[in-house]
Amino acid sequence: MESRITVITLGVDDLEASLRFYRDELGFATPGIVGEGIEHGAVVFIDLQPGLRLALWPRSSIAHDTGLPLGTASSTELTLGHNVDAKDEVDAIMEVARSARATIVKEAGTTSWGGYSGYFRDPDGHLWEIVWNPEWSG
Amino acid sequence: MESRITVITLGVDDLEASLRFYRDELGFATPGIVGEGIEHGAVVFIDLQPGLRLALWPRSSIAHDTGLPLGTASSTELTLGHNVDAKDEVDAIMEVARSARATIVKEAGTTSWGGYSGYFRDPDGHLWEIVWNPEWSG
Repeated sequence: MESRITVITLGVDDLEASLRFYRDELGFATPGIVGEGIEHGAVVFIDLQPGLRLALWPRSSIAHDTGLPLGTASSTELTLGHNVDAKDEVDAIMEVARSARATIVKEAGTTSWGGYSGYFRDPDGHLWEIVWNPEWSG
Repeated sequence: MESRITVITLGVDDLEASLRFYRDELGFATPGIVGEGIEHGAVVFIDLQPGLRLALWPRSSIAHDTGLPLGTASSTELTLGHNVDAKDEVDAIMEVARSARATIVKEAGTTSWGGYSGYFRDPDGHLWEIVWNPEWSG
């Protein structure tokens, strides 16, 4: 199976609050909520790298679209690893997250494998790890 | 904040079972489990597109690394959208998933927005949506 992941969709409880966090606080560019005219269509898309988008979509819409029961927030389901080129970039982004009133889950520090990272959670509990990996930075 | 997502990490309960599903059944290339010599280090990396990797990591390790309580599986936390160029490619991948004994959550069909998609879940309940989007295919 060839990899063709084009959208990472995060389930959210309050789409407007999630939009404010990602757009207004973290500073990701997005046209905002689209699809409001369609039942369970309201969604926020954020362009990440070329070919990859982040979508914010109500958990209730994921449940409706899949026919699955609505699950509860669970922070150990996934982490999004955001890689930067230097330790001080990790620190800088963690400060942005702190200013955005994200939950700082783990302050930036040296990892067991020789990198440097910190974790925060978005308003819905989704984990972001901001990480500097010396092997990737060259 | 510039987008630099390089790793999507999925929390799993049984790393070997998850490896078998992704490598042996779905056919993703991976060197297998690495980092077993480090406490909570055992992880599976799968190269996706250039610059993006999927990681399979025990939920217990995510809990340990972040200091958060171990959460339960919750399928409405995220979906991974895998985009293909034609409807029959959606059907073909759904058949691969079925053969892999994935849980078929929603059979492939026409979506409300004019696309064609189906959903399956991996052994840990993580949702994949296999989708053909006529607006993306050109």
